[in-house]
Amino acid sequence: MSKNISIFDTTLRDGTQGEGISLSVDDKLNIAKKLDFLGVEYIEGGIPGSNSKDIEFFKRVQELGLTSKIVAFGSTRRKGGNAETDANLNRIIESGAKAATLVGKSWDFHVHTALQTTLEENLNMIYDSIHYLKRNGIEVIFDAEHFFDGYKNNPEYTLSVMTRAYEAGADWLVMCDTNGGTMPHEIQEIVRAVVSHLPEAKFGIHTHNDCELAVANTLAAISAGARHVQGTMNGYGERCGNANLCSVIPNLQLKLGYHCIAEDKLAQLTNVSRYVSEIANVNMPVNQPYVGSAAFAHKGGIHVSAILRDSRTYEHIAPEQVGNKQRILVSELAGQSNIISKAQELGIELDPFSSHSRQVIDRIKDMEHQGYQFEGADGSLELLIREANGEVKELFTFESFKMLVEKTAGKPVVSEAFVKLSVGGRSHYTAAEGNGPVNALDNALRKALVTYYPSLQEMHLSDYKVRVLDDKDTTAAKVRVLIESKNFSNGWNTIGVSENVIEASWEALVDSFRYALLNEVPLEIIEPDTLAQGMVNH
Amino acid sequence: MSKNISIFDTTLRDGTQGEGISLSVDDKLNIAKKLDFLGVEYIEGGIPGSNSKDIEFFKRVQELGLTSKIVAFGSTRRKGGNAETDANLNRIIESGAKAATLVGKSWDFHVHTALQTTLEENLNMIYDSIHYLKRNGIEVIFDAEHFFDGYKNNPEYTLSVMTRAYEAGADWLVMCDTNGGTMPHEIQEIVRAVVSHLPEAKFGIHTHNDCELAVANTLAAISAGARHVQGTMNGYGERCGNANLCSVIPNLQLKLGYHCIAEDKLAQLTNVSRYVSEIANVNMPVNQPYVGSAAFAHKGGIHVSAILRDSRTYEHIAPEQVGNKQRILVSELAGQSNIISKAQELGIELDPFSSHSRQVIDRIKDMEHQGYQFEGADGSLELLIREANGEVKELFTFESFKMLVEKTAGKPVVSEAFVKLSVGGRSHYTAAEGNGPVNALDNALRKALVTYYPSLQEMHLSDYKVRVLDDKDTTAAKVRVLIESKNFSNGWNTIGVSENVIEASWEALVDSFRYALLNEVPLEIIEPDTLAQGMVNH
Repeated sequence: MSKNISIFDTTLRDGTQGEGISLSVDDKLNIAKKLDFLGVEYIEGGIPGSNSKDIEFFKRVQELGLTSKIVAFGSTRRKGGNAETDANLNRIIESGAKAATLVGKSWDFHVHTALQTTLEENLNMIYDSIHYLKRNGIEVIFDAEHFFDGYKNNPEYTLSVMTRAYEAGADWLVMCDTNGGTMPHEIQEIVRAVVSHLPEAKFGIHTHNDCELAVANTLAAISAGARHVQGTMNGYGERCGNANLCSVIPNLQLKLGYHCIAEDKLAQLTNVSRYVSEIANVNMPVNQPYVGSAAFAHKGGIHVSAILRDSRTYEHIAPEQVGNKQRILVSELAGQSNIISKAQELGIELDPFSSHSRQVIDRIKDMEHQGYQFEGADGSLELLIREANGEVKELFTFESFKMLVEKTAGKPVVSEAFVKLSVGGRSHYTAAEGNGPVNALDNALRKALVTYYPSLQEMHLSDYKVRVLDDKDTTAAKVRVLIESKNFSNGWNTIGVSENVIEASWEALVDSFRYALLNEVPLEIIEPDTLAQGMVNH
Repeated sequence: MSKNISIFDTTLRDGTQGEGISLSVDDKLNIAKKLDFLGVEYIEGGIPGSNSKDIEFFKRVQELGLTSKIVAFGSTRRKGGNAETDANLNRIIESGAKAATLVGKSWDFHVHTALQTTLEENLNMIYDSIHYLKRNGIEVIFDAEHFFDGYKNNPEYTLSVMTRAYEAGADWLVMCDTNGGTMPHEIQEIVRAVVSHLPEAKFGIHTHNDCELAVANTLAAISAGARHVQGTMNGYGERCGNANLCSVIPNLQLKLGYHCIAEDKLAQLTNVSRYVSEIANVNMPVNQPYVGSAAFAHKGGIHVSAILRDSRTYEHIAPEQVGNKQRILVSELAGQSNIISKAQELGIELDPFSSHSRQVIDRIKDMEHQGYQFEGADGSLELLIREANGEVKELFTFESFKMLVEKTAGKPVVSEAFVKLSVGGRSHYTAAEGNGPVNALDNALRKALVTYYPSLQEMHLSDYKVRVLDDKDTTAAKVRVLIESKNFSNGWNTIGVSENVIEASWEALVDSFRYALLNEVPLEIIEPDTLAQGMVNH
């Protein structure tokens, strides 16, 4: 039996059914480009019969000239009607998609309860709809909804559903565990029975994660003869989500010897999955398998010492195979060896026998106790380690800041910041407005420093997160601010903790500036009269 | 074979190895109480040999008189040493724990590489350590690290490890997939082989989620004869986490007919899992199986119409079996029927044929377009629906607010807010300090309204979240603020969106007050002279 697996991504359709997932047409086009780059065979783009946004997607995606096949989704024709005049089926044809997923009922209970028609009419709806699309030159993937519940209740009927879909010309017959309640051993038995019933047909699997088994159920179906997998990036999807392709693909390819995508593209999996989570505006769980930032992160002291000897001791694959990397976490569980290896990772020499080393560890532990979390703030951690090593110069002497936000009914809100500091004995008092308080502070601080450090113009804040640390009495509790900053080539994360969100933001902001300017030497400030002299001389 | 499964929770030990998980002794004691309430057989509390915090935990947990067995974790004795003088083993005995997990090597590669000793000495380390603890009256659970990698490399050696541990008196022999890289069919085959090799012994399983298969691997081991499951609440743990007991337990008990905990306690699973995520200060993914807030949430229009007819059409279990509940999500994918059923869920009559209904839907869609997300802000959504129905009275007429944060070197930061508004034509201008800007605004607003609404004294903000909506130029981008508020009996969530975090916070704060006071009638303000007259009259 072939070891090639057809990968069908439904992030843009089933994925958007997940809570908190909402994609614009541009978002969908951007994700489609990335999925095409990754090399999935099918990209399900949406439901042309449901809304104008999806119709626009199918129109514009054709202009991209992608290699992946773009798929439109729809249901079988309405009961009692005919396929040729069915509005939704005609929208699929008009969409220009070369392939279509048609969902049909296979659970007799659903035919009676949800569809409220006869078992025979349901078979006709399936046959007519597939046949109509096939006559129009469209490849058809038939998704048999609630297939496993249906099989358990009435195996003969589900087999007749698949037989009719096959007779109508469906290219793939997909068994869907729509409510996600089926166990892996059941999936395996049922898929095996169905495949042997229709040995000439090609079968696929579509699972949901309601029992935390979507990936396992997908593997079980493949082992029983399915060769087409429907899933989503990062497992997005209705309720608990769909089968996560970011886990399914490496499991099939690295562990079980199947072929899903090109090997060099597998090494892009982490990038693509993080890109999709950015576009979907969903925080990726740090512990997401294979692609999460903690997937190859080591915290326990024993593990860390062993990892430093040989990665295979605690890593099941080389992180680079999926484009991820090893990290050593710093935490209260960590011994001195963790911090020293973190310093090594940062390229900083830290003498393990020096009192500097002891000082950094004690300071980090003390700060963690106060609510700092350096696991997400590599920039601030590097500053601490370098500081203890005497490598960090101070940018300025802080004197004060004031931050004012004012809102009057009917007028736009106004944010202003005033920063007083001195650089090399020279005093600066700057004022700036901003779109919000942190932006105003950023602008005022930048104004004071940019003449010394012109490279600040290339840097900007790219993410800002606030976390309340103690939920007992929230606005009076401590908050942790994480700031992500970027320039043309790098990104770094810094942290601030305070009872006051503005003070915490200031702290993280100042750390971000200090990190950005670690290796910069301040320009000499040219006095106006010196400058005038210079101009005369030229 | 028995259908009883021994549940072993290691949230307090392996769980704290997860990135971002850090628990104080009080946190650990609180979680231990909840796990005991849930009825797990074993609670692994920590490593008495590693730090004083864990020693304190073992001392204080004895005072709680829990039913669950408290377990101390440690490694086998040092190579070349003896058990009786091994400091870590003696710390386990001194901890007062009635049971101990002893971790030992079973992969020959690890014995050579990480332990750097002989295969025979490793067997002696295992035998001596178990035997010593058993002689001291301690129940011993032997965790064979990297068991499956070991078996694949050298099955005879792993079997001799288990045999020696059994001969030494270990009560449970646990096969650990330490790096989480093993596939379910391998787990099943290997567990079956090991169980048949030592049929009198009792076996357990300990899996990790690196391939998104920890739950499936646990089920595979049970089907092959293991009767003891090690895992954590919400799957916390090193790298990608451990087997998630919040999924393992309902799968075993509701789907596969095993007995893990009492049925009425299973209905507390959602509560306990959310409690642990609160204490661990980790946001629970909304799509977490069984216990997540979206686990039984329905968004797609077709699904929603079917769900309203019969829940079984799209739900694999009744959510109440695990203490969760069904939700209807409101989103751009939703048709009018979703919003109407959401209104019904809130107990609000919304006439489907009225223009009110149309107005709410249009307004919600427009606000979602601007960045609002009502899925996490039920309170604000209810206000919108009631408002369109003409049911919401305005609490006050807003005139202005000012918010000032000031920080001078060497002095504490100061936050002040000034709020100007009028209630029933009466003008109020209040000023208040706070621990932070939102707290200051909260205090100033409360000051203005509390004489009309004394019940405000019972309400407080319990969580505060900030999300940047557009990462292109962050401090100038829109932010979404979610505020969670509580009084003695209820909790509600409100939302604000603005380019300015303070303005967004104000909006969410005002919505929180409006929601809290939905059914309250303002007190008549008694004028000072009227009050004086009243006093005379009494």
